[in-house]
Amino acid sequence: MTQPAHAVFRGCLVDTPALGALRIRPRGALGIDRRTGRIIGVAAEPAAGVAAAALVGGWTGSHVDDSDVEVIDLGADQFLMPGLIDTHTHAPQYTFLGLGHDLPLMDWLEKYTFKHESQFRDAELARTVYADVVRRVVRAGCTMAAYYGTIHLDACCVLAETIRAAGQRAYVGKVCMDANSPAYYSESTDESLQATEAFVHAVLAGHSAADASLLVRPIITPRFVPSCSDRCLRGLGELARAHELPVQSHLCENPAEIAFAKACFPGAASYSAIYHAAGLFGPRTIMAHCVHMSDDDIRLVRECGVGVSHCPNSNFSLSSGVADVRRLIDHGIPVGLGTDVGGGYAPSILDAMRMAAAASRAIVAARRDSAQPAGTPLDAGELLFLATQGGARVMGMQDHIGTLDPGKLFDALVVDLAAPGSPVPPPSATPAVLEHQRDGRHEQAWALRAEQFVFLADDRNIARVYVGGKLIHAL
Amino acid sequence: MTQPAHAVFRGCLVDTPALGALRIRPRGALGIDRRTGRIIGVAAEPAAGVAAAALVGGWTGSHVDDSDVEVIDLGADQFLMPGLIDTHTHAPQYTFLGLGHDLPLMDWLEKYTFKHESQFRDAELARTVYADVVRRVVRAGCTMAAYYGTIHLDACCVLAETIRAAGQRAYVGKVCMDANSPAYYSESTDESLQATEAFVHAVLAGHSAADASLLVRPIITPRFVPSCSDRCLRGLGELARAHELPVQSHLCENPAEIAFAKACFPGAASYSAIYHAAGLFGPRTIMAHCVHMSDDDIRLVRECGVGVSHCPNSNFSLSSGVADVRRLIDHGIPVGLGTDVGGGYAPSILDAMRMAAAASRAIVAARRDSAQPAGTPLDAGELLFLATQGGARVMGMQDHIGTLDPGKLFDALVVDLAAPGSPVPPPSATPAVLEHQRDGRHEQAWALRAEQFVFLADDRNIARVYVGGKLIHAL
Ligand SMILES: [Zn+2]
Ligand SMILES: [Zn+2]
Repeated sequence: MTQPAHAVFRGCLVDTPALGALRIRPRGALGIDRRTGRIIGVAAEPAAGVAAAALVGGWTGSHVDDSDVEVIDLGADQFLMPGLIDTHTHAPQYTFLGLGHDLPLMDWLEKYTFKHESQFRDAELARTVYADVVRRVVRAGCTMAAYYGTIHLDACCVLAETIRAAGQRAYVGKVCMDANSPAYYSESTDESLQATEAFVHAVLAGHSAADASLLVRPIITPRFVPSCSDRCLRGLGELARAHELPVQSHLCENPAEIAFAKACFPGAASYSAIYHAAGLFGPRTIMAHCVHMSDDDIRLVRECGVGVSHCPNSNFSLSSGVADVRRLIDHGIPVGLGTDVGGGYAPSILDAMRMAAAASRAIVAARRDSAQPAGTPLDAGELLFLATQGGARVMGMQDHIGTLDPGKLFDALVVDLAAPGSPVPPPSATPAVLEHQRDGRHEQAWALRAEQFVFLADDRNIARVYVGGKLIHAL
Repeated sequence: MTQPAHAVFRGCLVDTPALGALRIRPRGALGIDRRTGRIIGVAAEPAAGVAAAALVGGWTGSHVDDSDVEVIDLGADQFLMPGLIDTHTHAPQYTFLGLGHDLPLMDWLEKYTFKHESQFRDAELARTVYADVVRRVVRAGCTMAAYYGTIHLDACCVLAETIRAAGQRAYVGKVCMDANSPAYYSESTDESLQATEAFVHAVLAGHSAADASLLVRPIITPRFVPSCSDRCLRGLGELARAHELPVQSHLCENPAEIAFAKACFPGAASYSAIYHAAGLFGPRTIMAHCVHMSDDDIRLVRECGVGVSHCPNSNFSLSSGVADVRRLIDHGIPVGLGTDVGGGYAPSILDAMRMAAAASRAIVAARRDSAQPAGTPLDAGELLFLATQGGARVMGMQDHIGTLDPGKLFDALVVDLAAPGSPVPPPSATPAVLEHQRDGRHEQAWALRAEQFVFLADDRNIARVYVGGKLIHAL
């Protein structure tokens, strides 16, 4: 039996079309075309009694039979939202999840990261580990992630295949490290560039990197400035330009790292200037962390349209400092959230939202205490934006994912606040929600429940995960 | 069928007898006497083949039949640890869990807290809500909590009864507010003192407050300085002295609150001096927050043996600032952890450990960035200490709970790292654990797994909760 070509979800729709705009449609309807994997139409409140097939007919402009439409009615405690987007994570570092945050960045890299990552010279290990990793990331409600692999071509191909098989959307990067790296975990400049090019061809397999509907795409991935020679960075910049590829790396995470980066490139005006000079800064570039940004860093990132992956759990865990997201946003710099596993211990963008809240409030408190204008901390709606449409923009995917709008790919979650074991309390335990519900203020009731989702939910509340219209995980 | 009088747990025992001392006994045995609810003996590694009854016989010095001993073998992924201690939480504030952190403390009190708490004039509401609250707190692995109720005598009695019925250990406080409080939620000085005395008698029911084996005991609870008149504070100090009762309140949470407190008592040398002058500072006193402590505050707290409840989630959420736990500890001040629901959104001491880690690392980073000596952030073992024995000391219960030592009450958790849905990865996904296991370094393997527990576990890993030897929750 084949599935109907269309599906219509009926129930509460929650998304954030802009920063500060939490959009709630308590009695919405959303239609998808399973063949394209895209949203074909959304109605904020369809008239009572209108059949789903009639809605689809209206959206597509052609007659649709009832049998062509599957109707999915959300429960009273469920809502539909865009999938969570992890703009920065390291697949091989799931092997030391929750461990080793007793060291600052540069020591941590030596003692934990390089040692563990070097094991992925064994592609069979990659096969076992990455299957687990991707399952865990999807279960956390992440529909698209920007993954770092290791320096190994084979293991990175395994990662890309594993993600594609799981149905998740992703950028996957072969990490490049031809300088200042331990002998057991480094490569020559030529090896680095050739393996990157081979990886790009293997993953694209004849497709264009510009095809947004392609599930898994390669991303150019110099580990960070201290790990790469000038020739390597420039070669990678050239590859990114030639294939119109996205780029990811680390920027201004920690003072010792910044000093090291500048020492490697003594003439550079800033850390950012090094990436920029190599042709690696552009609107498809993702820079993780950006905790300690000079004015020159801010200027270059803004002018080039570079997106920032804010990884608050990692910044706390490695004592890197607290990134000022509001400052970045006020400069017009796109910001999304990243878990940065294993610098961060939590493999979930739900955690990243909470840690981003903590980071933002720590900054407000510190400003207030030093008699500066304190500013406003990030609220639940803004956190949800960073986790979805903000992340989509950082990925260069803002026209394709991130909100529940017609034309976008259907990367979405069914959230169930009444799932077994749910950490989110029921309305019966939350009088403010109950009152709004009783008085028919459903939008307000859902706004509170969305806030509880942001601060309390976990993977038990992620009932279903869709990517490109396909169900890839269900509880 | 009656239960055997003794039980012996065999398997991995994890506890923290001192700050910085993570004690792991991979093949331990621990015996309890169910009649007293206490631990009768612990063996780090009993000789192979020794029967549990023989162990109990050795510990008790008298012959014990096999039928008098229940043997509980922990699984390969399970360990036994002391119960988590929440040194500061507000039972009525679970009604807005996860909501309303958009405001700083004083506004938040007005808009959320007082409004919700005032509803508990209805004791029936208390009955419904508190049953939920206590169930949730126990499920999170909390074996002892210091609860704030509301100003209402009846509702506070309901809270105490509910906790006793659930079998949890607790201090319960009737909140006192006779000054600067909204008309709909305040009391006269006489009402406040009389209701407190009545509550103390009702909860103690003829027992002595000094009886540590009593499950639920009253605690003197002025909300905080701005909510109480001088006469009220002094009257409460008198009650605490007369009945040898513990005391809890809030201290130095937020600059606006500190200014308000000092404005209420213009002659006072510090915030602490106000409590001290009223006779409320002593070794049975718990002060929550202590974020912004003057030297005089530090001195008084230290000299009086006052314990501090560090509530990092609340401090982040309400933009209160970051408490410097290391500074408090270095001054010899006892510190435990608190959830401070609803100032904190997370009703779990597991979260409190993680947020304490974040707070501690934020301080280290800020010091480093301002070229001060950075100090050392709290590590997993230290966090576990704060959550157990540290909390016990803050509660004045360090001789009765907090570690797995003979003579202590058996308040403990069976943690199952392989529970269904566990967020903690299995050893097969964590090569460092696997290597230690393979090479017989079980203590090191468990140290890593305990670290993963601290950073990744949730209520799904809390397989069993014991208080006073009694099983009060099991998955
Ligand atoms: Zn990273
Ligand atoms: Zn409090």
